[in-house]
Amino acid sequence: MKRRDFLTSGVLAGSVMTASSASAALTPVTASAPFPGDRRSKAEFRMCSQLGIIPGNSTEDKLKWMKSHGFEAFEIGGLGDDYLDWKKRADDAGLLIASICIGSFGNKLTDEDPEKRKQGFDELKVQIERAGALGANGVVYVPATGKPDRPNWRIRELTVEMLKELGPFAAEHKTSINLEPLRRYEAWFLRQVSDAAAICKDAGVPGVGVNPDTYHMYLEEPDDMAALIAGGEFVKHVHLGNGTKRQLPGQDNHSHVKAMRGLKYIGYAGFIGYECGVNGDKETEVPKSVEYLRKCWEEA
Amino acid sequence: MKRRDFLTSGVLAGSVMTASSASAALTPVTASAPFPGDRRSKAEFRMCSQLGIIPGNSTEDKLKWMKSHGFEAFEIGGLGDDYLDWKKRADDAGLLIASICIGSFGNKLTDEDPEKRKQGFDELKVQIERAGALGANGVVYVPATGKPDRPNWRIRELTVEMLKELGPFAAEHKTSINLEPLRRYEAWFLRQVSDAAAICKDAGVPGVGVNPDTYHMYLEEPDDMAALIAGGEFVKHVHLGNGTKRQLPGQDNHSHVKAMRGLKYIGYAGFIGYECGVNGDKETEVPKSVEYLRKCWEEA
Repeated sequence: MKRRDFLTSGVLAGSVMTASSASAALTPVTASAPFPGDRRSKAEFRMCSQLGIIPGNSTEDKLKWMKSHGFEAFEIGGLGDDYLDWKKRADDAGLLIASICIGSFGNKLTDEDPEKRKQGFDELKVQIERAGALGANGVVYVPATGKPDRPNWRIRELTVEMLKELGPFAAEHKTSINLEPLRRYEAWFLRQVSDAAAICKDAGVPGVGVNPDTYHMYLEEPDDMAALIAGGEFVKHVHLGNGTKRQLPGQDNHSHVKAMRGLKYIGYAGFIGYECGVNGDKETEVPKSVEYLRKCWEEA
Repeated sequence: MKRRDFLTSGVLAGSVMTASSASAALTPVTASAPFPGDRRSKAEFRMCSQLGIIPGNSTEDKLKWMKSHGFEAFEIGGLGDDYLDWKKRADDAGLLIASICIGSFGNKLTDEDPEKRKQGFDELKVQIERAGALGANGVVYVPATGKPDRPNWRIRELTVEMLKELGPFAAEHKTSINLEPLRRYEAWFLRQVSDAAAICKDAGVPGVGVNPDTYHMYLEEPDDMAALIAGGEFVKHVHLGNGTKRQLPGQDNHSHVKAMRGLKYIGYAGFIGYECGVNGDKETEVPKSVEYLRKCWEEA
C-alpha cells in the first residue's frame, strides 16, 4: 500500500498507529501537501501599491520609500504620451510596474453604437501597447459601470467579443486585459470573480485575465477563498482595500485570511497591490498594513 | 510543540523524520485535517434521485428498487392536492422526500406586474406548505428563465424582495426556497452558484438556499470546487447530471471529483440527486453511476 493510498482511502482515520505501522507515515507532513489541488508551494507574497498612499513629496521619493519597505512593484493610471518616463522611474528605483489601472473608458467598448465601440477599442489598444512597453502584467479594465438599462447577457456578449479581438493583441504585447469586478454601487454588470473568470473562459483567447479587489469582494462575494479559486489561472493582479471604508487592510475588522488562502491555493505568485485610502499617518500605517497582510498570508 | 504547530508552521517540510522524532506525528493522519476550513469530517455521501431514470413499472417498484440500491431519498415535481399520498409512499418504502422541483412558475414571481407577482407568491406558498408537510428540505426554484429583456439588477431586486417575504414563511414550515442556477440556454439571469449564494446573503432571512446542479455547472462555473465552497452553508440540495448530454455522471468524461471535493470541504451532509437522463439500460447503468460518484467522493 502506497502513502497516497493511505491519504485517499483514509484507512488510518480513527485508528492509533502502532510503532511498527508508523514507518509508512514517516514522509514529512506539511500543512499544504494533503489537500488536493493545493498549489501553495508555488505561491509568493509580493507587495505592490498605487502611489497615493505612499509617503513622499515626489514620485521619486515615493518609489524610493517603497523599495526600502519591501515593495516590489507599483501601479499607475492611464498612460499619456510621456509613458516611457515611467519605465525610467521604475528602473531607477529598482521596482517593477505591475499594472495599469484604466477603468471603463466611459463604457465605450460595450456601447451599442459600433462607432463608439471602435473608438473605445482604439483607446484600449493604445493603453495595451504602452502597458506592454512598460513590462506591466496587464491593464485593469471595467466593461460597464453603473446600473445598466440593458440585460446582462447583452453586455456580456459585447465584452466577450471585445476580448476575442483584443486579448490576442494584448498577448502579442506580452500583457493582458484584466477584468475587475466591482461592488454594485460602482458597477452592476460584473460583481463577482467567478463571473469574470467565466467571461475569460468563454472568450477562449490568450491575453485575458481577472483583477479581483478585496474591497469589492467584501460586499459581493459569499466566500473570498472560493472567489479566488474560481478566478484560478485568470487572476493576474489583485487589488487590496478593506471592506468597510476602502482603507488599508488591517484598519477595520475585515479579515484578509480567506483571500490569502485562496491566492495560496491557486499558487498565485503575482502582485497584491493597494488601491485604497489610509486612515492616519502613511509612514506608520502602510508598514503596519503590510505586516498585517503578511500575517494573514502566513496564517492562510 | 503541539501537533497543530507542526501543521501550521510547516517545520517538518523538507526534512526526513528520524525514528526518534517520529513519535510527535503518530496521531493518525488523514487527507482532511490540515487544510484550513476543511469540514470533510462532517460530510456524508447520501444518494437521491428523481424517479424517471429509476427502473420499475410503478412508483412503488421504483421506490423499492431505490431502497434496495442504497438510495436514501427521492425528489418529485410540483405537488397537487393529493400530495400527502407521497408521504405514505415514502414511508412505505423507507425513503425520505428530499426536495420538490417546482421550476419558475412562468417567471411570475419576478414579473413587473404586481398582480402576477402576487399570484406567483400564492402558488409558491402552497408548494412550500406541502413541501414542509412532506418533510422535504426545500423547493427548487428558478427566479427567471430565458433571455430577459430587463437588466439583471432589476430581476435580482425582485428576487431578493420575494425571498425576504417568503423565506421566513418557508422556515416556519421547516423547509427552504432553494435557488437553482441554470446554464445560459435555460436561464441567463442566474447562472452561477456564487451569485445565488450572494442573493441569499442579501436576503438575510432564514428559509433560503441554493441548489447547485453539476450539469449546469459544467458550462457556467470556472471551477466546480470553488462554486460549491461559495455556496457554503446555503447549499441545501444538489442535482447531478453529466455536462455534455445531461445523462448519468460517469457516462461522459465530465469528472465529478472537484464537485465532490467542494461538497466535502463545506461538510455537506444533504442529498445529491440525479436530475438527468440515462444512456442505456437503467438497471445496470444507474448502479454503475452511483459507484462512479462514490469513487469521486472517496478520491475528493
